[in-house]
Amino acid sequence: MLDDIQNPEDLEQDDIQDAVLDGRRISAIRDAVEEADAERVNRLLEPLHSADIADLLEQVEPDERESILLLAPNAVDGDVLSELEETIREEVILALPPEVLNEAVRDLDSDDVVDLIEDLEDEQVDAILQALDGADRIAVEQSLSYPEYSAGRLMQREVVSAPEHWTVGHAIDYLRATEELPEQFYHVTLVDPRMRPVGNVTLGRLMGSPRATALADIQEETFRTIPVTEEQGAVAYAFNQYHLISAPVVDDDGRLVGMITIDDAMIVLDEEHEEDILRLAGVGESSLTDRVIETTKQRLPWLIVNLLTAILASLVIAQFEDAIATVVALAVLMPIVASMGGNAGTQSLTVAVRSLATRDLTGSNVWRVIRRETIVGLINGVVFAVIMAIVGLIWFGNPMLGGVIAVAMVVNLVIAALAGTLIPIGLERVGVDPALASGTFVTTVTDVVGFFAFLGLASAVLL
Amino acid sequence: MLDDIQNPEDLEQDDIQDAVLDGRRISAIRDAVEEADAERVNRLLEPLHSADIADLLEQVEPDERESILLLAPNAVDGDVLSELEETIREEVILALPPEVLNEAVRDLDSDDVVDLIEDLEDEQVDAILQALDGADRIAVEQSLSYPEYSAGRLMQREVVSAPEHWTVGHAIDYLRATEELPEQFYHVTLVDPRMRPVGNVTLGRLMGSPRATALADIQEETFRTIPVTEEQGAVAYAFNQYHLISAPVVDDDGRLVGMITIDDAMIVLDEEHEEDILRLAGVGESSLTDRVIETTKQRLPWLIVNLLTAILASLVIAQFEDAIATVVALAVLMPIVASMGGNAGTQSLTVAVRSLATRDLTGSNVWRVIRRETIVGLINGVVFAVIMAIVGLIWFGNPMLGGVIAVAMVVNLVIAALAGTLIPIGLERVGVDPALASGTFVTTVTDVVGFFAFLGLASAVLL
Repeated sequence: MLDDIQNPEDLEQDDIQDAVLDGRRISAIRDAVEEADAERVNRLLEPLHSADIADLLEQVEPDERESILLLAPNAVDGDVLSELEETIREEVILALPPEVLNEAVRDLDSDDVVDLIEDLEDEQVDAILQALDGADRIAVEQSLSYPEYSAGRLMQREVVSAPEHWTVGHAIDYLRATEELPEQFYHVTLVDPRMRPVGNVTLGRLMGSPRATALADIQEETFRTIPVTEEQGAVAYAFNQYHLISAPVVDDDGRLVGMITIDDAMIVLDEEHEEDILRLAGVGESSLTDRVIETTKQRLPWLIVNLLTAILASLVIAQFEDAIATVVALAVLMPIVASMGGNAGTQSLTVAVRSLATRDLTGSNVWRVIRRETIVGLINGVVFAVIMAIVGLIWFGNPMLGGVIAVAMVVNLVIAALAGTLIPIGLERVGVDPALASGTFVTTVTDVVGFFAFLGLASAVLL
Repeated sequence: MLDDIQNPEDLEQDDIQDAVLDGRRISAIRDAVEEADAERVNRLLEPLHSADIADLLEQVEPDERESILLLAPNAVDGDVLSELEETIREEVILALPPEVLNEAVRDLDSDDVVDLIEDLEDEQVDAILQALDGADRIAVEQSLSYPEYSAGRLMQREVVSAPEHWTVGHAIDYLRATEELPEQFYHVTLVDPRMRPVGNVTLGRLMGSPRATALADIQEETFRTIPVTEEQGAVAYAFNQYHLISAPVVDDDGRLVGMITIDDAMIVLDEEHEEDILRLAGVGESSLTDRVIETTKQRLPWLIVNLLTAILASLVIAQFEDAIATVVALAVLMPIVASMGGNAGTQSLTVAVRSLATRDLTGSNVWRVIRRETIVGLINGVVFAVIMAIVGLIWFGNPMLGGVIAVAMVVNLVIAALAGTLIPIGLERVGVDPALASGTFVTTVTDVVGFFAFLGLASAVLL
């Protein structure tokens, strides 16, 4: 990924369809920008996919970005805007000449416009809505009336449907006669007389079936409808679990209002995963293009929570100051017990958080999983108890010290396994995202228990 | 997700298409299994999607699973086998009557059979290959000849292609006349006379265009081919980045050999994310259905690595035994510095690992990102230095101690930011997966630096 830079000359001969944004192209573009060679910048950008142009704009320095927008404003179309990270997108929208922006927005389908503007400031939203003609503006405003992160925001309104009693011949004739089919559709959705979807027929099956065949006879085995208010994470789960390609979206009365396709579900799945990973690390929402001040703001709260839990652990240590003053080896060894607990707890926790997210951990297997984690914690505890008893004995020549650290290790690894499993489950039950908060709770438990078990036992036995 | 159980009676009246595997249904099935009521078990399983039947088999106790397979062997078809986790799948394959297994396997497309058997033991693979008829067996064996995790393993061999000079009319007539179209296809792939793919036409565009239109004129704007040896993670990246629905797979000479569809790419994306999350937590490959012994084996290695780094940190502390014996407050406060460094380092690290995985962190912005992380580390360091100076002063009434912890905090948070960014980048450069190994390295650095800075400075200033 961190490409070396070589021969920027022969780039312009690239096959357009396979043009990629590699280190060579980036540096060629930067050179052209520095020379203010507008024609060359445009020529280098032209074969790139809009997702790659967006990546480029994110990766260059802010002043280079400004120059690119100045030299090649037309390279930024609606798709590029859609692909940009939020912070950079705002910057680009402000920098683009109004006529280029209007042109870019008018290019997009209404669901892409919704996606584009839902994170923008109000004035920018207004500027973009003004650029749309009446019908599109109404469609966008309607979509915005659905809750954020709902199926309603994700769906496209253009759907191809057919009465459930039609034949293949009916459907083909209808499709051939329709003036404007949606840009993206893979199924014909069968509807009952009240416009409630009852099945899907793929275009492939339609093509491959005799004209007299009833559509109902070639509908797909797996068919799911999605409520318009469904949360987008649940939508992505359904697509992934049931291998859907597209699914009709229905309102409260079960009537067809739109359609979601797998490519949009894949983007959501990707975002949800990304969010989970970052939340597990205490980073919150964040991107590489955020500026220093935003990044600091995102990370500070988690570090403050961590400081409070670290102080709590220190308060535990402070209870045993006398023991430490007498046997300094305790201070040397105590971080090992806490650290092992923290790591083992994080392992259990991560497995539990993921299993909850993928709905593999349910009421029917929760006790079996808790039992398994506890036994694994016990086995790991015993293994490391033996190792640490030997280390303690050799290092400090004190068999009692070895015994103390061994017992503390077993206790802490079992507690780590329990905390790592029970805390995410408990958070899920009370409606808190376990990815968001589990880590802090679990390491607090393992720190406090680790220090307390080790130092408490040492005070009782060694002093 | 942890559903409560209520009214199992009215389950059988469910609309088949919306049947879900909730707590009610699971407990109804368990009841029926306990009563050995084969008819009722079958009736409850019948409306479920194969992915849900697989989830059920994973979630029940091993003896219940055995009973289900005994009472309702025919509920397990090829799709259910495909959806099962590896460990459970082996168990189910061994428990199924041979005729049911053969039937199940013959149901599947060749690419699904490949997916099914690539993780099985050799004898089981042979048993399954025997169940296939000649042509299917050859197709499966050919797929298995491609490297594991390559596009060749992922692709389906059934492709619909057309000469690039054809018109819409040609293509429609050809599709209508073809006896057996693939079950899944969304594009007609245009090929040159040497069978090299040059473009894609969606079935929707085909349906919506006049018969005289040249296929080349309605081909999709975005078109990518995938080399048969491409690693599956790169395939998933391409689908996600370029919003592909299906893409032709080509051999070394650029000739069409198969096709990958977005639903398979989505599964890969999901798996790769899952793997990254687990690797970041030091869990390795793992699933909820693994048994105690497998789980212990996966987790022990990482805990051993952690033990070594914890001992390394303890060796640093041991250098300052005298200082700790004199000022016990040092032992109380030192974990705070290390813990804050570890957390801040994990934040930087997670952002860096993800940015590398999504190819957002490249040669062109690496220095800017490092600069940003360092400044953020410095700001956070100063914030927590001030807080800890005050805490140290109030708690221990020693302004020098407050000053020492403040300086150590700034040093460790800056180092944490640098280590959290540079270590993943370095690992990526030498070809090691940064998700796999970064965490250990970074926390080792922050522990060692944290203890050394705090205790070293304290020794110099306070003694």
